Parts: sequence; C-alpha cells; structure tokens
Amino acid sequence: MSTPGAGGGPARLDGPVEVVGTGLLGTSIALACRRAGLEVLLTDVAEEHLRTASQLGAGRPRRPEDAPQLVVVAVPPDHLGAVIERVLGEGGRDDAVVTDVGSVKTGPLEAVAAHPRSHRYVGSHPMAGSERSGPLAASASLFDGRPWAITPHSTSDPDAVELVERLVEVCGGARVWLTPQEHDRAVARTSHVPHLLASLAAGRLAEAPEHHLQLSGQGVRDVTRVAAGDPALYGQILSANAEAVLGLLGEVRDQLQQVIDVVGSGDREALVRVLEAGVAGTRAIPGKHGGPPRPMASLWVQVPDHPGELARLFADAVASEVNIEDLRIDHDLAREVGQVELVVAADRVAHLHTSLESRGWVTHG
Amino acid sequence: MSTPGAGGGPARLDGPVEVVGTGLLGTSIALACRRAGLEVLLTDVAEEHLRTASQLGAGRPRRPEDAPQLVVVAVPPDHLGAVIERVLGEGGRDDAVVTDVGSVKTGPLEAVAAHPRSHRYVGSHPMAGSERSGPLAASASLFDGRPWAITPHSTSDPDAVELVERLVEVCGGARVWLTPQEHDRAVARTSHVPHLLASLAAGRLAEAPEHHLQLSGQGVRDVTRVAAGDPALYGQILSANAEAVLGLLGEVRDQLQQVIDVVGSGDREALVRVLEAGVAGTRAIPGKHGGPPRPMASLWVQVPDHPGELARLFADAVASEVNIEDLRIDHDLAREVGQVELVVAADRVAHLHTSLESRGWVTHG
Repeated sequence: MSTPGAGGGPARLDGPVEVVGTGLLGTSIALACRRAGLEVLLTDVAEEHLRTASQLGAGRPRRPEDAPQLVVVAVPPDHLGAVIERVLGEGGRDDAVVTDVGSVKTGPLEAVAAHPRSHRYVGSHPMAGSERSGPLAASASLFDGRPWAITPHSTSDPDAVELVERLVEVCGGARVWLTPQEHDRAVARTSHVPHLLASLAAGRLAEAPEHHLQLSGQGVRDVTRVAAGDPALYGQILSANAEAVLGLLGEVRDQLQQVIDVVGSGDREALVRVLEAGVAGTRAIPGKHGGPPRPMASLWVQVPDHPGELARLFADAVASEVNIEDLRIDHDLAREVGQVELVVAADRVAHLHTSLESRGWVTHG
Repeated sequence: MSTPGAGGGPARLDGPVEVVGTGLLGTSIALACRRAGLEVLLTDVAEEHLRTASQLGAGRPRRPEDAPQLVVVAVPPDHLGAVIERVLGEGGRDDAVVTDVGSVKTGPLEAVAAHPRSHRYVGSHPMAGSERSGPLAASASLFDGRPWAITPHSTSDPDAVELVERLVEVCGGARVWLTPQEHDRAVARTSHVPHLLASLAAGRLAEAPEHHLQLSGQGVRDVTRVAAGDPALYGQILSANAEAVLGLLGEVRDQLQQVIDVVGSGDREALVRVLEAGVAGTRAIPGKHGGPPRPMASLWVQVPDHPGELARLFADAVASEVNIEDLRIDHDLAREVGQVELVVAADRVAHLHTSLESRGWVTHG
C-alpha cells in the first residue's frame, strides 16, 4: 500500500492537507498546517469563505487533480456524515486518510461504516472555538494546548490513526484518545448537558421583570455564559448526540424532581446531599495543565476602572513574586471601580495580601 | 418620638451601630461603619468570632447598657427570624431600627409581622460574599458598588427605611428597592435556581469516568463554578426561599421535559427555540455599571504562564489605549501557556488586535 507509514515506520504528515469547510475550525487548522510548512488545499461550497481563507494565507483552492495525503472535514454537524462519505477515496483522493472535527463522533461513523474505505477514516474533535464562527475568527494558535479527542473505530488503520495524531501535534493540541461512543458520552456530560442547563437557567431570566435582574451577580453570569452560543449550531450538535444527551437528561430530570420533592417537604439532609454531589463534581474537573487540582485561594482587590490600573496591579503582583493562576473582573454596578479576584496557590495568598496592601491596594480575602 | 429623622429632616446614621453575628457579612459591615467613624457594637454567640472581629478593629462587644441606633442582624438563614424578633425593642435597644442581611426576605418578615415593633424592622440584602465565610474574610470594601436590596414592608416606618439606606451608603453598596416578596422571587431567578442547575450539572461530573473529564473546557467550568459553594449554607438559603424556588423549578422541570421530548423526536425547531430563549436571557442581564448592555468583543492572546507576562500584556494593552472590560484566563491542559481572553468594546477590538500583534503577541479574534 502506498499509505503514509507504509514500510513499518511511524506515519509522517508530509501533505498536502485538504481542508473541507473553511469556517473557524477548518481555516484555523489550515493556518496551523501552513505554519508547519505543509501544502494546504481548500474546499468549500461557500465561495466567499474559500476566498477569505485563501487571502488569509490558509492555502489555495483544491483542483480536481490534487491528491491530498490527509483530508480534514470541518463542515457543520448536519452535513458531516454525507461529506465524509463522499470524500473517502473519491476521485483524486485515492488512498487519503480522512478525519473530521465534528462535536459528535458516532453519527459520522455510522454514515461511513459500510463504506469500502472506512478503514481510512478516523474521527477527531478539538475542544476549541465553538462559540464563534467564520474564517475571519480563525487562528493558527486556536488549538494550542486544548484537548483534542482522537476517536479511532475498530477497523481504523493504525497508520491512519497515526497521521491524525500528527495533525493534532501540528496544531498544538493535547491528544486524548477515546472510542467514538465514549467520546459522545463524555461531551454529553462535559459540554452538551451543561449547555442545556445553562440555557434553561438563562431562559428564566428572559421572562423576568427588568428590575429583578438588578440583583444579578457574578454567579448567574457564569452559569449562563455558554447559553449565548449560536442556537442553530447547538441545535445541530445536540440533535447529533441525542442518545447520550437524552440518557443524562433523564438523570437530570429525575434528580430535579427529587430536588423539588425535598425542597417542598423540607428534607434538608437530602437537599444538602444533592448540593454536596455538586461540590464533588466541581472538584472532579481536571486542574491546570492536566495535573491534579491544587488548593487555590482568592484575593479580591479594588481597581479603579481606567486604563493603567490593571497593569499597575499586575506589576505589583509580579514584584510580590506570586504567580496569578486565574483572574476575574467583577465590575461594579454603580461606580467606576472593579473588584478583581486574583486566584493564587493557597499557600501564597497571605504573602500576596501583605505585599499588595503595602503597595497601597485595598484587598480582602 | 426620639427616632432618627424625627423633626422632619432626613434620617441620619450617627450610631452606635450594633452588628449581631460577626461572620463575613457582619464583620464587613462593621468595618465599613468604623471606616465612616461610627461607633460599632458587636454581638455573637461564638466567642471566638467576636474576639476576632474586635481584634480586626470592627468594634467592641456590646454591653447590656449600650443603646444602638441601628441593629444589623447577620446570622445564618436558619436563625434570622428568631434573632430579629428577639432584638426588636429588647432591653436597651428601645427604639432602635433593625435590619438584616439575609438572602431571603419574606421568612424573617413573617417571623416579626405580629411583633408590636415590626414597624422598626426593614429587611435588606447585599449581593456579596456568599461563597466565603468567617470574620477573617471580611473587608470594609466588600460591598463597594455591589447591588444591595432594601425591602421595606407595608408598615415599615419611613425614617427606618431611610436609616437602612444610610447604612447601604456607608457600606458603598448600590441600592435596589424591592418588596420582600419581589426580592425573593428575584433571587430565586438570579441566584437560587441557577445555583441548583449548576449543582445538577456538576453532580453529573462526579459520576463520570475520569478520562471523560479530560474533555472539560471553559464552558463547563463556568456553568458549575457556583456549585462549589457551602452545601450547608445553600441548603438553608434554598429552604428559606422554598416557595419562590419551587415555582421556578416547576417551570424548569416542564421545559426540561419539553427538551427531552423534542430532542427525542428530532423536533429541531422547538429545540432551537429553547436555545434562543437562553440567548435572550443572557442578553437581559444588566451591563456594567448598571447601564444598558454595550456590544463587546473578545480577543484571545497567548501568554506564557510565568510571572511578568500578564503584566507585560496589560502594559501593552494600556499603551494601545483600549480599556479591558473583562478578562479571563483559560489555562492549557498540556503546556505552560495560557490563552487570555480580553473583552473590550466591539468597536475597539480591531485596534487592540493590530496593536498587540505589532508588539509581538499572538492573538486571535
């Protein structure tokens, strides 16, 4: 076989790479491949996207005689299966390996399972960029350090899997291997069901008297943030992962009914158990850099809301030799000042407090 | 009457102010009153908290002969009603105005409605600090610019309401007037139900296979963040606001069942309508500084994860003369680099992009 990796060595990604669908994800992958010096061929039914992506330096439109080594399908969820099936071994793509970057993995696989060249298909899914769209939002650095699932199926060729691994490396992603079925259950839990619950919480706000919303704090802003995502896109994603989503939604419905029952009956212990399970869930999310969660603590600092003050705060934090692990700005409702929350290692917070106070900052722990 | 404001002028807060309950909120109020030069009397059943608050400069323990002008009850939700009832006009507190800072307002009011001095009680609720606890976390600046609900009932004396308004001013809060009933419906919507939905989403994570959670992105972290709050405290708060919470939870249950039905039947249009209602809800949350929401846009910047880089980024943003409205750090799973999301006015994002790129930053929009 004239496949990549034939001869027993590891597969090499030499290109050309064809990107089908020059939206945010496709164009970003194309730019990352160009950054690595690979030849990139672009295909899109939308002429305007194709032109924009080409002008951004993401590659050139594919000609019928071009023979890509790897085809990356980056079309909307509704079209994934059909497009993957079409490009698998289609004229000029002979023995090309095909991958896709869709948010759901079992559906596309079903669409190609009976295809004579399904062994050349390996699904994948980068965890990046789903809230924005279009080639103009693209960046070669979009995937840097982000999880990128690789989801081989039972008959995927090993060298095809390796070639997709090379693609993820070129894009700077952090590889996570899962079966297509596991992947879909995982994203239902970590993405799709949280998104739906955020939408339900946000939906209640749309109906609220305006003056009630004056009491909105940082909590509700956090909970509902993802619900601002494109309804058409998320409608496709949720529909494509209906089975896994429905399984979890059934659990959520049962537990919601339980919460309604125990709040109604005043069974405080049962209510607290539900809340404790939530605390355990927040602790189960992996920590920074994939390591175990470290104990963190927060310090709040008052910062006047004009250019320069945040820079001065950071300069002072640097002088304190404490690394800022996370940060959020909580703007005041009534005046031109913000509360900045600095999250640092728990054993460094007292030092940071003392150091910033000595530099004139008003803080509280 | 020897009440504040007697004589027809506006009520003046001259003190002494008594704070009952020297936890995070009570001690912070005491510190804010001390900052304004007011005499502060402290009461707490926990000797240790009382001693700590005194040592922090929050005031001195109340003696039986001390006659406060204003009593602020800042005890846990379960004890609010009983404590307010007890201090209303109790020996030495004669004509003092009494307020509280509990998260729920109809319950305490019911507890004192039949009290002969209920006209001296005015409920209130600052939107701050509920995720931490204890006097050591207190700060005079905790309430600066945060919404602070004032919830007079139908027989509250006008001068008593004014005195509570003065307290909120002294603490730097942004006053929001609501009836106790409206308040409780408002916080059910903007705080209690979002918290419960976050707990339900987080609860699903606790049960997940560990490698599935490798796919966790910023979205699920945002949705579940508040679910890390103290289960015992939130159990009290949710129980105290059971009626308003149950009303909304019933709506959420019905809509969740609708989502399950339409995902199951593939009714895409109905699903998209639910998601669109969520988008509308995120847009209904008031913007910064209480003004109407302004169009914002995000720029992502790659920042090496060591001290000094964020400071350098901020200095460069300042040099670009673009005000950073909000910011979040999305740490990479696999390497020592973070993506920093800068949120700026939509009409400034292109300028910031050009300016930061010219200073060597890798950005994407």
